[in-house]
Amino acid sequence: MSGVRAPAEGVYGELERRFAQLSGLDGALAVLTWDQATLMPTGGGAARAEQLATLETLRHEILTEPAFVGLIGEAEADTGRLDEWQAANLARMAHSARRAAALPGDLVAALSRARSACELRWREARVADDYAAFAELFEPLLGLVRESAAAWGQTLGLDPYDALIDAYEPGMGAEQIDPLFDDLAGFLPEFLGQALEHQAAKPSRLRFEGHFPVALQEAVSRKLMACLGFDFERGRLDVSHHPFCGGVPDDVRITTRYDEADFTSALMGVLHETGHALFERGLPAAWRDQPVGEAPGMAAHESQSLLVEMQVCRGRAFLEFAAPLIAEAFASCADTTGPAWTVDNLERHALWVEPSRIRVDADEVTYPAHILLRTRLEKAMIAGELGVADLPGAFDDGLKALLGVSPERARNGCLQDVHWPEGLFGYFPCYTLGALAAAQIYAAACAAVPGISEAIARGDFTPLMGWLGEQIHGQGSRVATPELIARATGAPLGTAAFKTHLTQRYLGG
Amino acid sequence: MSGVRAPAEGVYGELERRFAQLSGLDGALAVLTWDQATLMPTGGGAARAEQLATLETLRHEILTEPAFVGLIGEAEADTGRLDEWQAANLARMAHSARRAAALPGDLVAALSRARSACELRWREARVADDYAAFAELFEPLLGLVRESAAAWGQTLGLDPYDALIDAYEPGMGAEQIDPLFDDLAGFLPEFLGQALEHQAAKPSRLRFEGHFPVALQEAVSRKLMACLGFDFERGRLDVSHHPFCGGVPDDVRITTRYDEADFTSALMGVLHETGHALFERGLPAAWRDQPVGEAPGMAAHESQSLLVEMQVCRGRAFLEFAAPLIAEAFASCADTTGPAWTVDNLERHALWVEPSRIRVDADEVTYPAHILLRTRLEKAMIAGELGVADLPGAFDDGLKALLGVSPERARNGCLQDVHWPEGLFGYFPCYTLGALAAAQIYAAACAAVPGISEAIARGDFTPLMGWLGEQIHGQGSRVATPELIARATGAPLGTAAFKTHLTQRYLGG
Repeated sequence: MSGVRAPAEGVYGELERRFAQLSGLDGALAVLTWDQATLMPTGGGAARAEQLATLETLRHEILTEPAFVGLIGEAEADTGRLDEWQAANLARMAHSARRAAALPGDLVAALSRARSACELRWREARVADDYAAFAELFEPLLGLVRESAAAWGQTLGLDPYDALIDAYEPGMGAEQIDPLFDDLAGFLPEFLGQALEHQAAKPSRLRFEGHFPVALQEAVSRKLMACLGFDFERGRLDVSHHPFCGGVPDDVRITTRYDEADFTSALMGVLHETGHALFERGLPAAWRDQPVGEAPGMAAHESQSLLVEMQVCRGRAFLEFAAPLIAEAFASCADTTGPAWTVDNLERHALWVEPSRIRVDADEVTYPAHILLRTRLEKAMIAGELGVADLPGAFDDGLKALLGVSPERARNGCLQDVHWPEGLFGYFPCYTLGALAAAQIYAAACAAVPGISEAIARGDFTPLMGWLGEQIHGQGSRVATPELIARATGAPLGTAAFKTHLTQRYLGG
Repeated sequence: MSGVRAPAEGVYGELERRFAQLSGLDGALAVLTWDQATLMPTGGGAARAEQLATLETLRHEILTEPAFVGLIGEAEADTGRLDEWQAANLARMAHSARRAAALPGDLVAALSRARSACELRWREARVADDYAAFAELFEPLLGLVRESAAAWGQTLGLDPYDALIDAYEPGMGAEQIDPLFDDLAGFLPEFLGQALEHQAAKPSRLRFEGHFPVALQEAVSRKLMACLGFDFERGRLDVSHHPFCGGVPDDVRITTRYDEADFTSALMGVLHETGHALFERGLPAAWRDQPVGEAPGMAAHESQSLLVEMQVCRGRAFLEFAAPLIAEAFASCADTTGPAWTVDNLERHALWVEPSRIRVDADEVTYPAHILLRTRLEKAMIAGELGVADLPGAFDDGLKALLGVSPERARNGCLQDVHWPEGLFGYFPCYTLGALAAAQIYAAACAAVPGISEAIARGDFTPLMGWLGEQIHGQGSRVATPELIARATGAPLGTAAFKTHLTQRYLGG
C-alpha cells in the first residue's frame, strides 16, 4: 500500500477532511499525554490538565456538532460508492460519533481533569505507599467513570462494563471474553503446579552479578530495538514511572524504567513496547489521518507486543542472537565470561516461572491470573459492588487466592498499575486476549513462512515482520480484531494455541 | 497577589471563560512547539505540522466565531464595572480577536504548515550549509508572511512590517523604534573602537584549557539556575538547535546547546534563558489563564533575559560568587587552580568585545549591530524590496559594513538564526529594545534597593528579584511595555542608561 490515497468526494469526502482534523487533535493529545508521563515537572500538572481538558472538550464538540452528526447519517445512507476501506472507515467514524454523543461536554471535561489529577496523585501515593491519599482523588474519578459507562452503555445497548471495554476493543464484551477467561481459569492452576515442578527438576538460574548503569542498559536496549526494526528517525525511547507506548505512528515513543541491580526487567519491557511500536509504524500509511488507519483495538495491539516479547524475545532463537550482544554491552561492569552469561542461563531467566506480586514483571504462566483478578475487581467497581475503601483488601485477598502471594503494601498491590489512576477501566482484559492472540498468530506465521525461527537466531527479523506487516499491521482497522485474527490464522481466537505454547515451552524439553 | 481571582460575571465573565479555553490551547501549542524543537525525531515532522496547524486553526475559529466577536463588542460597550486588571484584560482580548479576524482560516493553516516545514528544512540546511535547499521552503513561507502582514496592517491601520512587530510588542513600531536605533547606530561604531582600544591596553584573556563534558556543564548550569530562583519542580533545562524559553509559566522550559571545548557559551546562554523563565514564573498567578496574565511583549521579555545575563551575570559581583562554583564543577576535567580560573580572567571572558559573525554569541557592544542589520533586512523582505535569492549577499555585505567580519558560509550568515525559518519577522528589534530596557531597569532597581550588588556577590538574588517581581514580573500586561518601563524607572525608554552602562563597563576602570 502506498502512502498516498486519492481525495474522496461528496459527503464521505467531507467526513475524511473533518476526521483528518480530529487526527491532528488526537496526535496533539498523544504527545501531551506522553510528555505528562515522562518529562513534565510535577508543578506543571494543573496547567497540563487544563490543556488536555481543553483539547478533549474541543474534540467532543467537533464530534457532537449537529451538522457533523448529520453528515455521518447522510454518508451511512449512501455507502454504495465506497470501497472496502472507505466503508470500514465510515463505520469507525460513526462509532466514534456515537460514543461521543453519549456524554455531555461537561462530563468529558470533568473526566479529563479527574484523570490528570488522579494520575499525578498516584505517582506520589505509590512511592509513599499512601492509599488514603490516592483514594481521595480516585473516589471522584471512579464516580465519573461509572457515570460515563452508564451513558455509553445506554447509547450502545451494552452493559456498562462492556461499554468501557468497547472503547479499547470495539465489539468485544463479556460474551466473547468470559468463555476464554473461564477456560484459562480452569487450566492454569494445575498447569502452574506442573510447570513449577518441571522447573524445580532442572538447574536453577544463576544471578547476574554486577551493577548495570542505566546508560549501558539503554544502549543495549536501543541496539536490540534497531535490530527488530525500530526506526529512531521516527521514534524515541525514554523513561517513565510505568512503561508504555505513545506518540503517533511517525513519531512513536516507548518508555521503560531501569533497575541498576537487574537489567532483565527493563530489557524485556523495552522489547515488549517495541512490539507495540512496530505495529504503529506498520499501520497503513495511506490512511494515517483516518480512523481506519488505526489499530482495530488494544487486544490486537497487545498481541503484537506479546508476540515480540513472549513468543520471540524470550524464545531460544532470539536469545542465541542476543546473548553475545548483552554480554558485550555489560562487559565493562560485570564479569560476563562467567557461567551466568550463557544462553542457557539467559533462557532460564527469560522463562522463569514464579508467582509474584507485580503484573508487569510476571511470567507468562502467572500473568493471566493478574488479569483475571483485575477484570473481576474493575467489573465489580463499575457495577457498584466494590467500593474504593474495600479495593486494597479485595486486591490482596484475590492475589493470595490466585497465586498464593501477598502484596503486603498497597504500592505492590492495587496501586502498582497506572490504569485505574488514569481512569482506564476495561483495558486489562486486552492483555490476556492479546496473549492468546499472540500465540495463535505466531504459530500461524511460523506455519506460513518457513525459517522464521532460524532467521531470528541470525538477528534477521524480516521474514516474521514481513508476514506480520501484511497480515496484521498493514490492515489497520479494515476489519475488527476477531475477524483480523481469524483471517490471519484461519481460526477464531481461542485458548488452544496459547495452551500448546505453554505446554511445549514449560513442560517440554 | 494571590493565586485565586473571583469569577467575573456577565458578558465579560463569559469572555474570561472562553479565554481560559484559549489559554489551554495556547499552552498545548507551547508544549508541542517545545517538543518539536527539542525531542521530536525528524520523521515526526509532518505529523507534528498537522497537529500544530489543527490547533492553530481551532484557535482561529474560536477567535473569529461571530458570537464570540459579538461578546467582545458588547463587553467593550460596557466597561464601567471592570476594574483596572479586567479592563486591561478586555483590551488584550479585543486585540487578539482583531488580529485573528484579519486573516482567513486557510491562511492561518497554510502559514502554520509552512513554518513547521521550513523550520525542519532549516535544521538540515544549516548543518549542510545549503541555502538553496532552505530557499525552496523559505520562499513560500515569506510569501505567506507578507500576505499576513498586509492583512494585519490593513485591519490595524499599520504599515505591514509594523503590523508584524505588533504581534510581539503591541503598539511598538517604526515611530517608536527608529529614533532609538538611529541613536545607537550613531553612537556604537565610535564606541566600539574605543572599547577595543581600552581592552587592548589591558591583559588579554587566558583560554580555559580542557574538555568540558556536557554532563558537567549541565550540572553547573542547573546549580546556578537554582541559585537565581529557577524552580525545577516547575520547569526544565534541555538541549535544542537554537536556545529558547518555552512552555507555560508553571512548566517553563529553557534550552541551550553545549560546546565541549568552551563552557562559557552554554553557561551564559542558560543564564539568559533563566531571565526569561523567571519572568514567566513571576507573572501574576491569579491571571494565569488570561491575556492580562501574560508578559506585555517580547521587548519586555528580552529586557529580563538581558538584565539577568548582561547586567547581572556578566558583572563583577555575580562572577565573584560564581567563580568558585564553576572551578569546582570542572575540577575533574581541567586544572582549575591555574591562572585562567581567577575572577579577573572569568570577567575578561564575560566582557570580551570582538566583532563576530554569530549573534547569540555576540558581546553586548556589537550585539545591536546584528539587530540593526536583521531589522533592515526583514523590513526590506516584507516590503518586497529584498528577494530570497538576494538575502545571503545582502546579509554578508551588511555584516561586513557594520562589523567588518564576513560570514563566509550561509550557516554563519543568514542561516544562523531560527527566527526567519520559523516565520518570526518583526521579533528581532525586541532584542535591542530589551537591551536598552535592561540597562534602564537595572539602574532603577539598584537606585531603589540598596545592596543589590552586594547581595548578588553572596549569591543572594532576592533583593533584586523581589523588586523585579513587584515592578515588572507581577504586572503581567496590565499596562503596555513602554508604560511598564516608564512606571518602573521613572522615565520613558531611551538609550541613556544603556550608553552609561557600556561606558562604565568598557571604558571605565
